[in-house]
This record gives sequence, C-alpha cells and structure tokens, in this order.
Amino acid sequence: MRIGWIGTGIMGKSMAGHLQAAGHDLFVYNRTKEKARPLLENGATWCATPSEVTFNSEIVFTMVGFPRDVEEVYLGENGILTAAGPCRVIIDMTTSRPDLARSIAEIAMSQGIASLDAPVSGGDIGAQEATLAIMVGGYKKAFDEVDHLFQIMGKTISFMGKPGAGQHTKMCNQILIAGTMIGVCESLLYASKTGLNEDAVIDIIGKGAASSWCINNLGRRIAQKNYDPGFFVEHFIKDMGIALQEAEALDLTLPGLALVHQLYIGVKAQGHGRSGTQALMLALKNLNGDF
Amino acid sequence: MRIGWIGTGIMGKSMAGHLQAAGHDLFVYNRTKEKARPLLENGATWCATPSEVTFNSEIVFTMVGFPRDVEEVYLGENGILTAAGPCRVIIDMTTSRPDLARSIAEIAMSQGIASLDAPVSGGDIGAQEATLAIMVGGYKKAFDEVDHLFQIMGKTISFMGKPGAGQHTKMCNQILIAGTMIGVCESLLYASKTGLNEDAVIDIIGKGAASSWCINNLGRRIAQKNYDPGFFVEHFIKDMGIALQEAEALDLTLPGLALVHQLYIGVKAQGHGRSGTQALMLALKNLNGDF
Repeated sequence: MRIGWIGTGIMGKSMAGHLQAAGHDLFVYNRTKEKARPLLENGATWCATPSEVTFNSEIVFTMVGFPRDVEEVYLGENGILTAAGPCRVIIDMTTSRPDLARSIAEIAMSQGIASLDAPVSGGDIGAQEATLAIMVGGYKKAFDEVDHLFQIMGKTISFMGKPGAGQHTKMCNQILIAGTMIGVCESLLYASKTGLNEDAVIDIIGKGAASSWCINNLGRRIAQKNYDPGFFVEHFIKDMGIALQEAEALDLTLPGLALVHQLYIGVKAQGHGRSGTQALMLALKNLNGDF
Repeated sequence: MRIGWIGTGIMGKSMAGHLQAAGHDLFVYNRTKEKARPLLENGATWCATPSEVTFNSEIVFTMVGFPRDVEEVYLGENGILTAAGPCRVIIDMTTSRPDLARSIAEIAMSQGIASLDAPVSGGDIGAQEATLAIMVGGYKKAFDEVDHLFQIMGKTISFMGKPGAGQHTKMCNQILIAGTMIGVCESLLYASKTGLNEDAVIDIIGKGAASSWCINNLGRRIAQKNYDPGFFVEHFIKDMGIALQEAEALDLTLPGLALVHQLYIGVKAQGHGRSGTQALMLALKNLNGDF
C-alpha cells in the first residue's frame, strides 16, 4: 500500500518504521529532513511538501508536535488538503485539539476524503515496541479500512466515536494522569518531610487502593531523584492546556486539572520543560522553600 | 495468649475474629455491646471499661473511629493507660493523628508499656479476608513480639519506623488516593460531557500510564452511578484533615490535597457522608450545575 507519513520525530519515526517493515511503500515529509534518514535509507520516498505526500499516497498519517503544526500541515500552504490525488483517508496521530480534528474532518469530507483523529498513549517505548494504545475518532468505515495499519503500530486499538472522539479520549487519559501525579508527588513529599523512606512507602502504598502505574514507576524515579523524561513536561502542559480550553468551551470547570496545570507551568519556569512529568515534585518542593 | 480488643465495628469485629479463630483468648470492650456479640458468643470475655481490658490482657489492640475516640480510650477516665496489670504492648490500628500516636507512646513508655501505631488499608473486605496492609510505627522490639498477630489479620505487614510512622505512612496512602480520585472523577466527567462512553474510556485509559486501582474499580462504579460505600466519604474527610493538620504543623503546603479535601466537604454537605469515596463525582457535577 502507498502510505504517506508526515512527522518523523521520536514517536513518528518508530511508528512509520513498523509500517515500512510490514512491506508498505512510504512517502515521507518532515520539517527536518535529517530525522527521516533511517526511513529513506530503507527505501522510503522523500517528498518536499505535505501536499506532495498526499498526491502520492492512498492513506496519509501525521504525527507532529503541537496543534499549530497540525493546522499548518493540513490547512497551510502546500498542506495535505491542498492536493488532489488518490488519497482516501487522512489520520492525525498527534495529541491535538478536538475542535481542530472536527474542522479538518469537515473540510476533508467536502473533498471526499475521510479523516480520523487517532492520538496514542504509551510513549517512545510503546512506539518502538508497537504496544501503543490508539484512540480513534471519525468515520467508522474509514476506521475499518485502516484498522489493519493501526494493528501494526499498537496493541490496544479503540474506535471511540465521531470526529474528535479520539482526541477527547486522550484528554481523559491526561486528566487522569494529572490527578494521579499530584497525588504521587504530594504523598512522597509528605513521606520525605516526615522522615519516612520513600521506597519503603511505595512498597506498601503501591499495592491496594492507592496503587497506580504512576506511583510504581514515576514514584520510584522520584525516590531516586531521577527526573529523566519518559514524557516531557512541556508536552504535558500542552495536553492539559487543550483539555482546559475544550472544557471551558463546554462550560465545564475542572479545578483539579487547573491546579496541576498551573504547577506544571511552574516546573517549566524552573527550567524543567524537557524533564519528565515526575518533575512536578520539584515545583512542590520549590513551593515549600525546599529547592 | 490473652489479648484485649477495643472497638468491634465493621473492621474491628472481623480482625478480632481472626485472632479468636487462631485460638487466642479475647477480652473485649466496645461502646455498643451489641456489636461485640458474635465474639462473645464464640467465647470472648466482656469487659465493662477499657481499663478492665488492659488489666486482663498481655497485649491490647484498639480499632475505634476518630482520634477523639482514641484519646478517650487510651487517656480518658477508665482508659487503657489508667490500669496496672500484665499488659506489655498496646497497639492502635485506628487511622488517627501521628502526634497523638507519639503522645500515647511517650506516656505508655513511662509506665513500662510499649505502644505501636498500626493503621491498615484494605477496607472491610481486607479485614474479612485477612488481606489488610498494616503500616506499623513504634518500638521495633515490640513490633517483633506481635508481628505473628499482625500476620493473622493482614497480608502485607511493614515496620516503618518510630512512633507515629505507621500513621504517617497511612497519610501517604490517603494523600495518594485523594489525588488519584480527583483525576478519576474529572476524567470521567469530561468523558461524559464530551459524549464518550465512560466504560469504553476506562477500557482504554485503565491500562498503561493512567492506570490505577481507583479508575478500574471506583471508576467502574461511577460509570454505573453506583455510590455505595467501600470506604465512607466522612472517614476520608477525617483522614485528609489529619494529613493537612500534620502537614501544616510541619510548614508543608499540599495544594492538591487541600482542594480535594474541600470538594469532599461539599460531597458531605450534599448528604453523602456515608456514600463511598467515588461520590466525589457528585460534588464535581454539582459544581458544574449538573446535579
């Protein structure tokens, strides 16, 4: 199958690589060509613009950074939707704005192209090992047509409903992590302030009703003062910002999320935008005159 | 062994029952005698006051409701510490104030009695099935002496350090749950507001980095609008209040916990003090004019 891929960063490079390894012909565009080199060396065709990708491909995937990048790649000059060609389905796997996903779906539909929003969770390791969770919104028929491609990149693939529903599901995931992370960090801060051994505390509270992936993985890193990124603070700030914007548009107040978002802005202000999300601990320490 | 047990509510009744079933002689006191009946029918000896329990027992356990009950049972008129007798170790399993645990330990020590604070997690089911986690603070020698009794009531037994350390560890557990629960409820509120199926969302976000016991258990109950108690809102408010008081005494600000505590007070104000902790959802709905 002739497949277009736009965005060959840490995640995109691995995901596109799985499609290539499965025998598909790739047509690739990235802002920095250098990052696409491994795919090109394995036989992918370089395209000078997103529209050139669309012109050559039956199905186009995008995995870029921020909603503004999604907007540019789809709707900008030489964007995906400016090209005619054989393209039938376009799929944005970036975590982006649900309302943008809906706009793109409408514009695409008017050109006879079906659009899917399909953000993922699982991080760079999930991308490398093809174990991503993929949350899909859009037209069911289009989903059924490309499901076999999702299966190559991920483990848990869920069709969630109409355009934007994939992005909304990803927002649910991020809102849940935000709450869990404030619990993890405040719990371990209290532990360290009261003289408890953080690892011994995790050994016991990491089972039972308080247990979570975050306490048992990121909590352990906090105990080691290891703030290396699994997922960047600045990307998490982006995601929470999208959720808060969308919630406000729906007249929905989410006070916990708003608080955590503010604290993460503080983490970034401390120079930790490219640290892992467990660096929330540093904002709480800072707030307590302990940093 | 002659064992005293004070407090035969939902949790205490099951826990004392395991000791009795293991062949120990129980000396029992409870504010409402009726609730001790199953133990008495199985051969336990009724005592008219806490001091009568101490007078008859080598080891005394307490499992009462609030810190004020702990204070009364240990330090009040006819309290545990007013009696002479063979008692060597006293163990409070109530979730209570760490500073109160330290005071009791000091007073007891001056009478030659070792005190342990040993709150639990695992709820009524954990108590029934003897699968509790038990977090112990106090004197290591006393812990070693009674560890075999903890093993009869629980599955994960951890010695955490000096007097109060058991209570502090339980506070870490509750702080972690508080954060996780605001994440769970805001995530599912966003899901329902954006038209997603809550169970379908849990199916996907309940694995991976956002996963927790709370989303996979209490989240499911929320999806069914089931607010039956596993753990009472009013007890959780008590626990968070203790953690916030103790944190303030340490000059420690925990903004996430403070927010969640306030929201739970709202849940109680809505008449849900005896609902389960997942009723936090109702305060968030109420806040959004949706209840």
